Formats: sequence, C-alpha cells, structure tokens
Amino acid sequence: MTRPVLLAVLATLAAGAPGAVLAQSAPVAARARADDATPVLVSIDQWRAMAEAGDRYPMFAAERARVEREVRAAMAAGINVPQPRDPGGGVTHEQHKANYKAIYGAGALYRLTDDRAYADFARDMLLEYARLYPTLSNHPAGNSPVKGRLFWQALNDSVWLVYSAQGYDAIRDTLTADQRRTIDNDVFRRMTRFLSEENAPYFDRIHNHATWATAGVGMTGYMLRDPDLVDRALNGTAHDGGAGFLRQVDELFSPDGYYAEGPYYQRYALAPFVIFARAIQQNEPQRDIFGRRDGVLLKAVDGVIQSSYAGLLFPINDAMPDKGLDTEEIVTGVAVAYAQTRDPGLLSIAEGQGRTILSPDGLAVAEGVADGAARPFDFRSMQLRDGPNGDLGNLVFLRHGGAEGQALVMKNTQQGQGHGHFDRLEMLFYDDGQPIVRDYGAARFLNVEAKGGGGYLPENDSWAMQTVAHNTLVVGHASQFGGDLQRGEEHPTTPLFFEVDDGLQIASARLENGYDGVVLTRTLAMVEHPDLTYPVVIDLFRADGTATTTYDLPLHFNGHIVTAFEAEHSVRERPVLGDANGYQHLWVDAVAAPSGESRSLTWLLGGRFYTYRFGASSPIGAMLVESGANDPNFNLRREPALIQRMQGQADASFFSVLEPHGAYDGTAETVSGATSRIRDIARVRGAGAEVIVLTLASGRTLALGVADDVAPGAAHSVQANGQTWEWTGPYARFDR
Amino acid sequence: MTRPVLLAVLATLAAGAPGAVLAQSAPVAARARADDATPVLVSIDQWRAMAEAGDRYPMFAAERARVEREVRAAMAAGINVPQPRDPGGGVTHEQHKANYKAIYGAGALYRLTDDRAYADFARDMLLEYARLYPTLSNHPAGNSPVKGRLFWQALNDSVWLVYSAQGYDAIRDTLTADQRRTIDNDVFRRMTRFLSEENAPYFDRIHNHATWATAGVGMTGYMLRDPDLVDRALNGTAHDGGAGFLRQVDELFSPDGYYAEGPYYQRYALAPFVIFARAIQQNEPQRDIFGRRDGVLLKAVDGVIQSSYAGLLFPINDAMPDKGLDTEEIVTGVAVAYAQTRDPGLLSIAEGQGRTILSPDGLAVAEGVADGAARPFDFRSMQLRDGPNGDLGNLVFLRHGGAEGQALVMKNTQQGQGHGHFDRLEMLFYDDGQPIVRDYGAARFLNVEAKGGGGYLPENDSWAMQTVAHNTLVVGHASQFGGDLQRGEEHPTTPLFFEVDDGLQIASARLENGYDGVVLTRTLAMVEHPDLTYPVVIDLFRADGTATTTYDLPLHFNGHIVTAFEAEHSVRERPVLGDANGYQHLWVDAVAAPSGESRSLTWLLGGRFYTYRFGASSPIGAMLVESGANDPNFNLRREPALIQRMQGQADASFFSVLEPHGAYDGTAETVSGATSRIRDIARVRGAGAEVIVLTLASGRTLALGVADDVAPGAAHSVQANGQTWEWTGPYARFDR
Repeated sequence: MTRPVLLAVLATLAAGAPGAVLAQSAPVAARARADDATPVLVSIDQWRAMAEAGDRYPMFAAERARVEREVRAAMAAGINVPQPRDPGGGVTHEQHKANYKAIYGAGALYRLTDDRAYADFARDMLLEYARLYPTLSNHPAGNSPVKGRLFWQALNDSVWLVYSAQGYDAIRDTLTADQRRTIDNDVFRRMTRFLSEENAPYFDRIHNHATWATAGVGMTGYMLRDPDLVDRALNGTAHDGGAGFLRQVDELFSPDGYYAEGPYYQRYALAPFVIFARAIQQNEPQRDIFGRRDGVLLKAVDGVIQSSYAGLLFPINDAMPDKGLDTEEIVTGVAVAYAQTRDPGLLSIAEGQGRTILSPDGLAVAEGVADGAARPFDFRSMQLRDGPNGDLGNLVFLRHGGAEGQALVMKNTQQGQGHGHFDRLEMLFYDDGQPIVRDYGAARFLNVEAKGGGGYLPENDSWAMQTVAHNTLVVGHASQFGGDLQRGEEHPTTPLFFEVDDGLQIASARLENGYDGVVLTRTLAMVEHPDLTYPVVIDLFRADGTATTTYDLPLHFNGHIVTAFEAEHSVRERPVLGDANGYQHLWVDAVAAPSGESRSLTWLLGGRFYTYRFGASSPIGAMLVESGANDPNFNLRREPALIQRMQGQADASFFSVLEPHGAYDGTAETVSGATSRIRDIARVRGAGAEVIVLTLASGRTLALGVADDVAPGAAHSVQANGQTWEWTGPYARFDR
Repeated sequence: MTRPVLLAVLATLAAGAPGAVLAQSAPVAARARADDATPVLVSIDQWRAMAEAGDRYPMFAAERARVEREVRAAMAAGINVPQPRDPGGGVTHEQHKANYKAIYGAGALYRLTDDRAYADFARDMLLEYARLYPTLSNHPAGNSPVKGRLFWQALNDSVWLVYSAQGYDAIRDTLTADQRRTIDNDVFRRMTRFLSEENAPYFDRIHNHATWATAGVGMTGYMLRDPDLVDRALNGTAHDGGAGFLRQVDELFSPDGYYAEGPYYQRYALAPFVIFARAIQQNEPQRDIFGRRDGVLLKAVDGVIQSSYAGLLFPINDAMPDKGLDTEEIVTGVAVAYAQTRDPGLLSIAEGQGRTILSPDGLAVAEGVADGAARPFDFRSMQLRDGPNGDLGNLVFLRHGGAEGQALVMKNTQQGQGHGHFDRLEMLFYDDGQPIVRDYGAARFLNVEAKGGGGYLPENDSWAMQTVAHNTLVVGHASQFGGDLQRGEEHPTTPLFFEVDDGLQIASARLENGYDGVVLTRTLAMVEHPDLTYPVVIDLFRADGTATTTYDLPLHFNGHIVTAFEAEHSVRERPVLGDANGYQHLWVDAVAAPSGESRSLTWLLGGRFYTYRFGASSPIGAMLVESGANDPNFNLRREPALIQRMQGQADASFFSVLEPHGAYDGTAETVSGATSRIRDIARVRGAGAEVIVLTLASGRTLALGVADDVAPGAAHSVQANGQTWEWTGPYARFDR
C-alpha cells in the first residue's frame, strides 16, 4: 500500500464511513468499520505471538512479571488521578507519571494474559482522565515557557501521551462505543490539540522536547485513524515538512547518528525517536523510516552504544558518570534496533541490560538471547561526525582489545548547546574496565533533593564545565571561549585526520577560536609495539599563540599514586590553586619547579599500573592537585589531577605517553611488571614537523612524526642527533 | 586400627622389615613391602576417583586445566633449580616457589591423567634438588632469626616441604629404588632434619610459622612411613606433646576458632592447619583431628568466613582491605571443611571463590556445586571469643538480612600481637554490600616494590595502627596503651554481654587499661522498628575518668556527604588536625563549635542514604576531616571521617544512631526516602543507668536503656520529662 492509499484509508475510517470499499484489502480489512478499535500500534497477531511465547523466553517472562508486579500494585492502590498541583518530583507529578506507566503496562498485560481486569483498570483510569482533563488549564506550578496541563512542563504531558496512547491502543477494542468516544475526545484529542495547536510553535521546534510531542500526537493519530494528526506529527503543523518528526530526524542527528549534546543526552533524546519510528514502521512501512538518511536512527542507537565503556556512557558534557546502557531509553532502543537489524551484537548489549520491553521487538530480543544467538557487540574505532551535515567536528573513539580493552576518546565536537562543556580536544582513556583518564561529568546528584533540589549544582558551572576540569589545554588560566556558551556555539572544532591502521590508530583536530590569538592542535595516537604488553597513548598538544601566556595541561588520572616526580609537597597546609574558572576548586598537593627534563607519574588502579611520561618544548612545572576546595557543601567528588604548566611562552608543544603495564593481584599477592617498559620520551622539532621519540627499556625506539601541514602529499624531513626521520603525509611511525 | 597399631605398622615399614605380619590387615596390605611407595597423602582409590570424574564437574575440570597450563609452562621452560641467592621477591626466591608449585601440580596431574611425562618432570626436578640441597648452608640473604636454606627464611622452606611432599607422594611409586632413596634422603630427610633438629627451638614454637614446619615434617613422615617424624611433628621434638602440631591446634585458636591476629592473618595461618589435619585424617583417622577441641579447626574455617562481608575479610588489624574469601588458603579450607561436614553453605562460598583444589575434598566440592547442592552460607550473629581459653575478649558480629544485609562488627579482642591495632571497642558497619563505617586496614601496597618494598609502610605505624584511625574513643589525643604493643598485649578487653533477640541484637564491652585512669564502656545495638526500613545501630560510648581530658570519637564513614551540620569550613586553606598519634595525617575540612544539641550527618553510598545522628553528655564540637596530610609519598588513601570532640570533662557519654534509609537509582533516575525517618536522639541519665531515646518521624519513640551494672538481676529505673523507664538486667528496649 502506498502512502497516499493508506492515508486515504485512514481518512475514510476517521470520517466514520463504512469501510466496505476496502474490504478486499486483507491487511486492513479488520479496520474497515467506523467503530473499529483493533490495536494498530502493535497488531493483534503480534500481541498473540507475545502471549503465546509464554515463559519460553526468560528475559521476556521476567519483564512481564516485573510489569505485573508494578501494575498489580497500582491496581491494589486504586485509581488516583489528582488535580495537578506539584512541580517535578512532587506528589501529583509522580502520580501522573505512575499513571501513564500503569496504563501502558495494563494495556500490554491485558493482551498478554487475556485478563480483562487489566483492560478495565486502564479504562477506568482513562475515564477519570476524561473527567479531569477538560477542566484543566495551565499547570499551576508551571515555570517553563511551555507549561503542561497534567505536569508543570509540556514535555511531561507529551511523554504521558506517548505511553498512554500505547496502553489505550491495546485495550480500546474492549470499550463500549460511548466509553471510547469519551476517552478519544476528552483525553487524546484534547491533548493533541493542546500540544499541536495551542502550542504550535513549541510543537514545530526542531528540538528533542518537541520530538516527544510529535511522537505522542502521531501515535494518537494512528490509533484514532486520523491522517491529519499523523501528518501534522510527521510534517509539522503547516503540513509542509518544515517542521515535525521527519525534519527532526533530519536535523537533530549528524549523518553518523551523533546527537549534539553528547551521549548522556543522546540516550535521553533517543526514546521518542525510536518509539515513534517503530509506530510509523508498523503503520506505514513504505515510509522506510529506519532507512531514512541512510539509516540514521539505527546509527543513533549504535552510536550511543559505541559511546560507552564497561556499560557506562562516556560522561562528556553534562552527564552523570553512573549512567549506563541499562537505562530504559537504551533498552527500548536496542529492542527496536534489533528488530530491524537482527544484529546479534545487540543481544549481548541486551544481556548486559538484563531486560527488554513488552513489545514484538522485545520478544525478538528475548528469543535471540534465549537461543544463545548473542555475540559480542562490535565496539570499534570510529568517528562520530557532529552536526546535521557532519561538518561540525567529531567525537573519536580509538579502541583495542574489545569491550573492556583500551578506549581512547577525543572530543572534537561543537559546543553541544547548554549542556556542553568547555572541553574541546579533550582526551579520555579507558582500560581494563575502568576510566584511567577521566571526565568529571556533571556536578549534580540527580533527584537528591538536599543537593540543590536534585538539579545541576552551582559547581556544575564553577567547576564541571570549566576547561581545567578536563583533559585539555587551558590558556591563561581561562576556559575556552571565555566560558561563554554562545561564543562556543559559533565555533566548531576542526578534525584534521583520523586513521585506523594495524598497530597505529591516530586522530588529530584543531581549535582555532577557543582562545583569542591561539590555535590549538592536538594529535592523539594509540600505538602497539612488541615490547609493550598493551597499546600506549602518544599525545602531542601544540599551541601556536601570538603573545606570551600561561599554558596549563591537566590530566585527571584515576588511581593511587605509586611514584611521582620530585616536588615540594604541601603536607602541613594545603593551598588553593587559583581564584576562578575552576582553579578555585583545586587543592594543591605538590609543586615541581619548571624543568626541561621529562618527568613521569605512575599510579595503580585495580589490577594494573599506569605510567604517564611527559615533557614539553620549554621548561614546565608540574603540580599534583585534587578537586574539592571552596566547596562548603561537599558538592564535589575529590579526584586527583596532574597539571603541567608552561609560563612566558607564546608557542608550546606538550608531548607525553601513557602506558598501561604490569599486573597487581591482591588475592594471589603477586605483582609483575610494576616498572614502565619505556625509558624515556623526547621531542625533536624539525622544519614543519615534530617527532616524538620513545626509548623503550630494550633500547629500541618507537617514534611518531607529526607534520604541521596535514596535506596527504606533503613530504617532511626532520634531522637531529645524527638521525633523520622522513615521511610523506600528516604523520608517520618509525620503529628502530 | 588404633594409633599404636598404625605407628607399629609404620615403624615396621620404615625399618625396611617385610610387612608380612600385617598382610592380613587389608587396608595397609599394599604398604606391606619395604620398598612400598604407594601414595599415602591421597590414596590410589581417591586419585582414581578424581581421574574418573573427568570433566563431569566443571569446577574440578577448570582447576585441572589451570594447573595443566601452569605445569606445562614450567615443563616448557625446563628444570631450573638455582643456587639460592635472592631475598623474598627475587629471582631465585620466585623460582623455588614456582618449583614447589610445579612439583605439587605435576604429581596431581600424573595421577589424574596417567601421563608419565608429569611424573618424570617432578622426579627430575626433585633429583636436581637432591644434588643441590646437600650442598647448602644458611641462605646468604637470610635476615630473619631463622634462616632457610632454599629461601631467606625457614618459613618458606617449610612451605616448600608441605607442597613438594604432596607432589612427591603422588609420583614416588614411579621411581626406581635408587632414585627414591636419593630423593628421600637428600631432599626430604635432610629438610626434616634441618627444620626439626637443627632448628628445634623454632620447630617447637607455638606459632603459625612453626605450623608450616610441623606440617611439612609430619606429611613427610607419613610419606616415608617414619613414625618418629610423624610423632615429632604432632608432639614436638621432645615427643611429649609440649610442642608440635597438636599443641598448636590447642593454643593458637580460641575455642571458637578465632586466631589472635585477626581474620587477615587467620586466613594465612589456616592453610598448614587444614592441609596437615587432612593428612592426619587420611592416615590416622582414629585421631579424629577434626573433632579435636570440639572441632576447633572446622570452627576456624567457619570463623574466617563469618569474618567477611561481600567476599572480603573485615580488615581489622594489619589487613589488606582487598583480601577476600577467594584466596588460596580459604579455597583449601573450604574444600577440607566441606569434605568433613558436607555443609551445603560452604558450596556457595566455593561458588563465590570460583575454584577449588585438586584433591578428594576439591572433587567433593565440585560435585556438590555441579549437583546444585549449594545453599546460602549461614552468615549469622555470633561472637568469636578470643584467647586459647576464650577469656581474652571477643570479636562480635551482629547481622541481619543475610550475606549482603547489615553487619555490625565490634572488636573487643586482645591486642593481636605485632599486627594488632590500637582499636579496642571499635565498631564497623556494613550494609548493601559495602562498608559504611570502615577500618582503614594496613597502610601497605602488598608487593608493590616502589611502595616501601611492598611491605608495611611507615604510615602503618603513624596512621593505620593509631586509635584515631579507628571508630573508637581517643582519650587525650593519644592512642590506646600509649601506642605500646607490649602494654596492649597485657590487657585484653572485657566483654560485658552479648544477646541476639528478635529485633534487638546487642553487645557490650569494657576496656579498663587502654588509658590510665579512664574506663571505657561501649554498648552497640542493632535494632529493628516497623517505622524503619532497615535496622539501625544505636551506640552508647561511655568514658569514666579521674581527670579532665579531651575525648575524640571518630567515625570513618564511607560515602559522599549529602547534608552536614553547620560548621566553619576550611575552603581556601586546609590545616592539619594535630602533630602525632595519627592526627598529623588528618586534613581539617570543617569545624563546628561545641554545642549541647544533637547533630546529624547524611551521606550517600551506592544506592542508599545513611544518617548518623549524634550527641553527648556535655557539649561537643564536631569536625569533618580527611586522611592524607603529611603524606609526601601519597602512601595513604584519602578517606573522610567525622570526629566528635568533648573537652574539659572527666566523664563522657557519646550516643548516636546510624540509620540506613531510602534508595538512589541512577539508572531509573529515581530517589526515595532521602530523608531520615528519625527526628531526634536524646539521652536521659538516671541513677546507675542511661536511656537513649529516638523520636521517629511518626512521633513514636524507641528507647534503649543501658545500665551501668550489667548484673542480670539488677533492677533499674530512670525518670525524666515525666517519663519513667524501668527494667531489670543490663539493657532494655522501650517502644512508645
């Protein structure tokens, strides 16, 4: 059936005309009566298949049992549809939230168990809403520009609609025509009017909050057989494609499926996209919504999984570091994506999540898992290009050794809107299941009322967003873009190159406008060598400035210091490093005076040692610091960092190597390889290029040449100490 | 066969006399030839049963595979029996260590696989030892009073003998008479002479190091059919029971199986006891060694498991906090104990360990696990009395909610020798799988060469052993017994009472001589109440002094502070708390001036909130501090603590309640019960007793009366605020 035909069918049905003319079209024959209320978001056959699966697939059975417990508790508590009063977290807020979950769950359980009590419960609750909803105007506690009716913000009303529409669709054919009419009109049609007419500008925004609105309205449209609602959801209130869900799909993700705010918010934004896309696929498969933009929605699911390590999302930008792949949104995303792709790697993610959803997609996942079809997810080296056209920077992952092997992250994205941090060119490193060089994430205790009401804390601005809180260069003690979000939004990062070869993976990027008069260029490589048990990270961070300034390069390492460089230690009184831009939150533990020699720092985390060996083009000082100063409310975690400082230079090159090595086994009381296998690191500057030379314990050398000019055909030659390094292209490796 | 008969048999065999006179005694018929070399530490039938079990029991098969990998690697590397040269951790030390493991493993594998290559490998290695050993005198790097020959200390030589004897026993019947004679005489007899004759005073010590020596000599005795060796091992070099293994069993454990140095060293000490006991049971079952002292060896295995939480041992005294039940020693202990008791709870411990050993006992464990016979281990409230007669204090565990529920530990033991800390009356609290109020353990990075050679660090003395590093009262800024181990050894702690009732578990103890002129009495209760989700800990700590002093009560809590009491915060400069006795290692974060009001501190750890509500008999100040000051080598972990301080009083009562509450779920982004359900805590002093009154959020009260006089029949009455609390006995609970 082509799209116009389907819409015609829907129009006929919606108008209440007898569907006899379409009776010969078998798939929609069942709908061919004016009062048809057969489920459309999940078909009768699909529900039947799920019901018949019974307990065959443990993951599905477990989810059904979980939802049963939840809904039965709601049924036991009785229907409670309160007059809206409280803001987020308050009693009426939480009750309406619980209600949509109950409607959604009861609908599914009715279909899965054939127990009419579930359907009646959902019906009675919806009838209550039909009494309440028409009496409501703007929420009394609303303080957002777009207030809701049931909730303080329209966002929550939209979410209510997305879930309740699914529950209602499942039980709608159990109602009398009167009941149906009452709920159709007084709840669902009114809500769609509220969202898509009374708040049309909001509805037409290209923003993930509006995606919940379009999803709710569109799914209601399918359920009510209302093609106008569906089209408004897909193409905006003007029905011209200038807004609406399809436009959101086209603009809110980069071509690689990256979402500008970063993985934490990508997880959150993903849900309405995959839920509504699934409904579109179910009702209008000819739209091939999952094929749109070369499969961008599936790429977004893959991308958010790729943006994780050991089950937790890389906490760049405002992100809770404990947020992982096991969240509801990603559980849904994995199920929907698996149903489309049957990628067995997704099953291993589902296994890690430990659950799935009560949908045909969830059934497929549970079946795959039960059949032992799961395979390790393909965590791979990749770049996720940022921006609707993919030209606003990238987020780079260099990986080795599978899910819990080495992962090097380089953040060369655009600012990422209000939740973006001033952290361009930041590197993160993961190994052996843990973050080794880490990002603080957001300063927030999510929903912990006593901590700033559970929202972002003042320290999110004063510390977590600041450049010094990240593993990237700070110029003149200030944050990138002067800590100005708007300026940041105007300047994306420029990727220079990204290559994944055997034994050498490398990425480079440049930030031109982070600081006035200073161009920052960083090149990060993950390099393997037969002398080294694990790949090492080689880092070359260059600043080309026009005036002398102070350059600080922080490394937020994770672990207990085993050996540090020589320094003056603040053992009896601990000063604070600075006054502003995050520096006011750093206690100083030790300060080493400037030196031209390379230094090293070794720490231990879990079962492995890490040695960071570093130097620079001019003498640098080195400080060991810890977060937690100027924090009278104990809002910050206390985490150590190394800061390299170069003063009085306009240009700077910082070079380093980070080496995982050895093994610590507390159970067997054995330690091996506690000493670094790298003896020295040095830098050689030539005309238009520099070479980082690692001397290994064996005496062999491993060098990385990096050219200023990244043109593929440019030839470079560097001579020093009687040696010559020659190559063509932006970089080269030399083993001697 | 009675013991004298067996000894007679052995004597006959050892003398080389034909065993014909005993041929009618079936069980020993096989041994009835002078050159008999049939295995005796594990019988032929037992080996056959293990071999036939094949891959039926995954845990056994996995261990066999692991040992195969290890031994095959050793075989591939070739035999290497170096001239002893290096101290612990050095090359020759590690090689001789690897060798005894290889001999032990190869012996087992020969029996399990019938592959003669294993036997030949063990034989050839032992022949090398037969060449080397007679040439050796004291180890050149020996610096212990009792130097070894293969190793720097005799302890390691004993361990070598224990394992090699087992390996040799398994292959001895594959050797020619000449080979056997060579190895018997030039390795095993010489080693037993070295340990039990040349170092007789060492061998006769009642100390766990000597247990390795008696085990090695005794097992060699069984293997060589030498009753004199066996008797020397069991009864000491004088053969009179004044020393030797049996005496060690009688004196090194308390009647409850507690080992004076605490769980960490109990784990270590356990191995030779259970290994040798098993050999005794095998060869002289009539001794009923596992029944000795009412089964004290089995109690010791149970006790060390009881001394753990979430798989990790309670880190009291010098202990690595990452040391758990999965260590080799406890794996062995669990297998040996399971073979004796068939306690299905031990199987769940084995499951947690994930492995077992290649012995008949290990086979039984693997079989039980494979059969699904495992049941949860019975972690229960108990006291482990300390001292050979059980009258030198106790270690108390109050538990609720199973393995990862609540566990309250109270340390009322004796000093615990050189590894003991000045921590009497300390409390620890565990909940939800984690330590909530914790002990620092030892300041040590085990075997990490760069950290003080891997041994105990200077901070072990200056911090970890000190009283302020523990959750117990510090008097006059000093440690208990003036930090003098010898004084500590002279004074055990005095338990007052210990009761486990429904909803109320309680323990009390007194320390009379920790500080001159001050008697310390602490009563700790774990109390349930219908208003409270989890049991709470009520603590009453009294000091009765003769002169005014300063009382500091530290609480080393684990988690992130959510809300703290009002205080002056050191936000821009962080001072150190003191100069000595551990205080020099504490940074001060906040100081609250003395107040007579109760205060509270709430922190978050993992998924739960904890509120500690506290007050005292006179105004107290309160400080928030953190370890890590005066630590230029970063040897200390940085952990927070609360210190309550009362000044200028001779007597003091500190009272508090610790309440786990609520739930934080970062995945679902939900928080509940973040607010304490206790509104207030107050203390009422009456004649000869005091009452701690908790006022709950509901308005109900929960009170605990504690009498000064702990006589069971003593009657008490306390009146205050128009209320009366009356009871008989040391304590009483009142719900109103």
